[in-house]
Amino acid sequence: MVKRRERRTRERQADTAVVHATQPLHHLPPYEILNEEGLERIHNASMIILSEVGIDFYDDEAQAILKQHGIRFQGDTAFFDPAQVAEYVAKAPRQFTQLARSPANNVTIGGNHLCLAPVYGPPFVHDLDKGRREATLVDFQNFVRLTYLNPYLHHSGGTIVEPTDEPTHTRHLDMVYSHIKYSDKPFMGSVTSKANAEDSVRMAEIVFGAETIRQQPALLSLINISSPRRLDDRMLGALVAYAKARQGLIITPFILSGAMAPVSVAGTVAQLNAEALAGIVLTQMINAGTPVVYGAFQTNIDLQSGAPVFGSPESQLALYASAQLARRYGLPFRSGGMFASSKIPDAQAAYESVMVMLPTVLARVNFVLHAAGWLENGLTAGYEKFVLDCQLLGSFHKYMQGLDLSDEGLALDAIREVPPGGHHLGTDHTMRHFRHAFYRSPLFDYNSFEQWAEDGAQPADQKANAEWKRLLKSYEAPSLDPAIDEALVAFMTRRKGEIKPEY
Amino acid sequence: MVKRRERRTRERQADTAVVHATQPLHHLPPYEILNEEGLERIHNASMIILSEVGIDFYDDEAQAILKQHGIRFQGDTAFFDPAQVAEYVAKAPRQFTQLARSPANNVTIGGNHLCLAPVYGPPFVHDLDKGRREATLVDFQNFVRLTYLNPYLHHSGGTIVEPTDEPTHTRHLDMVYSHIKYSDKPFMGSVTSKANAEDSVRMAEIVFGAETIRQQPALLSLINISSPRRLDDRMLGALVAYAKARQGLIITPFILSGAMAPVSVAGTVAQLNAEALAGIVLTQMINAGTPVVYGAFQTNIDLQSGAPVFGSPESQLALYASAQLARRYGLPFRSGGMFASSKIPDAQAAYESVMVMLPTVLARVNFVLHAAGWLENGLTAGYEKFVLDCQLLGSFHKYMQGLDLSDEGLALDAIREVPPGGHHLGTDHTMRHFRHAFYRSPLFDYNSFEQWAEDGAQPADQKANAEWKRLLKSYEAPSLDPAIDEALVAFMTRRKGEIKPEY
Repeated sequence: MVKRRERRTRERQADTAVVHATQPLHHLPPYEILNEEGLERIHNASMIILSEVGIDFYDDEAQAILKQHGIRFQGDTAFFDPAQVAEYVAKAPRQFTQLARSPANNVTIGGNHLCLAPVYGPPFVHDLDKGRREATLVDFQNFVRLTYLNPYLHHSGGTIVEPTDEPTHTRHLDMVYSHIKYSDKPFMGSVTSKANAEDSVRMAEIVFGAETIRQQPALLSLINISSPRRLDDRMLGALVAYAKARQGLIITPFILSGAMAPVSVAGTVAQLNAEALAGIVLTQMINAGTPVVYGAFQTNIDLQSGAPVFGSPESQLALYASAQLARRYGLPFRSGGMFASSKIPDAQAAYESVMVMLPTVLARVNFVLHAAGWLENGLTAGYEKFVLDCQLLGSFHKYMQGLDLSDEGLALDAIREVPPGGHHLGTDHTMRHFRHAFYRSPLFDYNSFEQWAEDGAQPADQKANAEWKRLLKSYEAPSLDPAIDEALVAFMTRRKGEIKPEY
Repeated sequence: MVKRRERRTRERQADTAVVHATQPLHHLPPYEILNEEGLERIHNASMIILSEVGIDFYDDEAQAILKQHGIRFQGDTAFFDPAQVAEYVAKAPRQFTQLARSPANNVTIGGNHLCLAPVYGPPFVHDLDKGRREATLVDFQNFVRLTYLNPYLHHSGGTIVEPTDEPTHTRHLDMVYSHIKYSDKPFMGSVTSKANAEDSVRMAEIVFGAETIRQQPALLSLINISSPRRLDDRMLGALVAYAKARQGLIITPFILSGAMAPVSVAGTVAQLNAEALAGIVLTQMINAGTPVVYGAFQTNIDLQSGAPVFGSPESQLALYASAQLARRYGLPFRSGGMFASSKIPDAQAAYESVMVMLPTVLARVNFVLHAAGWLENGLTAGYEKFVLDCQLLGSFHKYMQGLDLSDEGLALDAIREVPPGGHHLGTDHTMRHFRHAFYRSPLFDYNSFEQWAEDGAQPADQKANAEWKRLLKSYEAPSLDPAIDEALVAFMTRRKGEIKPEY
């Protein structure tokens, strides 16, 4: 065992140092539940949905683009031939780099790379002190800071929470600005309208330069498909704007089986696949080569209450199947996260979260939104939940390294050295690998019962409560060129004067 | 959504009915992290350990049997040739049936079958009312009852907790009797000495008949190997007694990497494999064809405190690798469980538990000890933890069914039927699959925030506290032939008079 002083020093370093995020690589095989025949059955069902049942597009510009490229329409419903789908899906890159304000934080999306981002979308926040309440811009900025401070979150995310104290029609500016100001990790753009997407692009251009972001995207934005079989005008407007600017897009059908899709997993995955491909084809018709990610957000409703259920076995199966489809098409894949139906960071929330997050890693997902902080079916971002989820993220990095099967890994010399009933604490082999042999969650308790009781017998959520406060107190913003900051503020001020509320 | 009255009736039924345990079959492929070459590298390292480094056996009878079968010895250390290992391992059955007092509860161990059993071994219990305290016989019987009541635990287990209020030298009789009296599921025998194992066999003979249990075992007992490379006299005495009586055995090296094995996963797995095979070979030399399970209990220590760490990424990798080795030898496999280092049923305990239990299912484990109740590195069995762990067990049953890829599963008719933006709640397809479409944890909360708050805003551990009390109140013992009961009590009374305390 390590000397007490060394241990304290190492704990302090681990706690306070802002470690630059390094993305882990999937070194282990993906877990696959479908054989080739099963995969083709689902693919073929999706082709029938695309060519015979159709997908609705509620946007004139999107319809015009699809028609120009030979897509048949009846009213708002588009019908895609399998050959058209294959042709345009093939134009999307297999992987791409998204720029970060600090180049060391650029991320690779696709291939064997894993990129983790925080929760997205909740209108509420929760902490142990004040319970559940409406999220504000301060909460948004706090979560940007907490994400910046965590070495295992590689991406600053997007709408981490809805800043409900800011006007609806201008809050996208505050969110994008906060990502730039309080972090130097890559971030997402607004998708609430075409104009808001264009504002996001303009702000990215101010930071990175217009030419630069045409070569490599500085934005990766989330287009949800309104399942079943429907893309609405807001999302399509944003999709068109980003694809024209060659910014990254994640096309994600958002499906609760039993409501927006059949109760069967295979039927849900087939429908989801058709919807995702329809959106992806559109991006490539607008601007071939635009970086695009195949997204799959799937769980089921509780048939008793109609509410969503997270952590279900059905959602795990769907995740594995969707991952295989994305690989079949050679597309980067987004799915999964630390999902929970529980309202608070209790045992239920933790069970549910790992029941999705571990399959997320094993399915070889490339981009994970919601890797930290999600509570209450996504309605709430939890401060303690965020810190607790982060305890596991480092563990996945270690897991993904796989086994060292070299002679040093097999360690026969150490095994020979230690007599029956002896111990390995002092062997040369242990000393050589001491520092990196085992991953350890910094916040979890591994002390004796007596030590734990003496330390106050704290449950994990209470420890997490102290931890996020300590982290926010320790936060120092990364430097930002004052000229860029000034230009961003000037742009926001002008736009806030121009944009009219819709209501 | 279902009508309120129907919903209430169904909830009541689900809560109170004692459903007979039915074991699920692994329909999905196992997750494998080693290719053939990697698997052979570990196998070959194990063969070097067995043939060159050796395993110690501290029991004269076991040594004599090994020597009679051509095993070389130097002092207490045995050396096994690879050909000897292969010859005797091949004599063990690939799968077998363990008898239960109620034949409907017989279990199959091996092949594609999964058998789940409760926690084993803790000297302490924990509940929210009284905290942590020494376990008693009443606690033991309570956990037998709770296991009996759960449809997803197929096995009554063994030393669910240590009844510390009973004398050490006779408590094995009370434990075996309690399994028989308060449950009709299969159970485990005592392994604390040869005599205690023989007592267990005698009690099984009273219940099932001596001839019957020579055909199919009525006991499945846990022989731990004292790693590194050592089998002690107590365990060897019990192993010999059970193998002679042709009762089932689980041979399990109990390893904390960094203490009893190298810090590397591959080295740990190679050593564990050698140790398990040595014990398995002995069982087949005593009585060829004796049912035996390849066991692997592996995690690592915290190199800062020396304490065990559960839920670590290293232990997941070891589990997958050990499962592949067991399949290579054609042996039933035991590993995993709902392990936790946390002292209480909080978020830490839940995160840790799923981090092991999900890999346990994906690795295609056949027998899972510790599938419910484990806390504090196995020192404590938690009442609330037990109930919470059980919420997930049904979920694994559903998961293991895999995907329905039939036309009914692909559900194209339902997809055609529902218009863009419509919903599937009322389709014929949904109606047909309503009852079994989605698994739902009975205790977890899926209500709205408002409903949850109105219901008392209870965290999961509080709900579990009410639930185990409700379950124990609802418990009714399965009937037991009074003549058998009388014979068991007479045997116990006689033995309690005969056995002398060791101290």
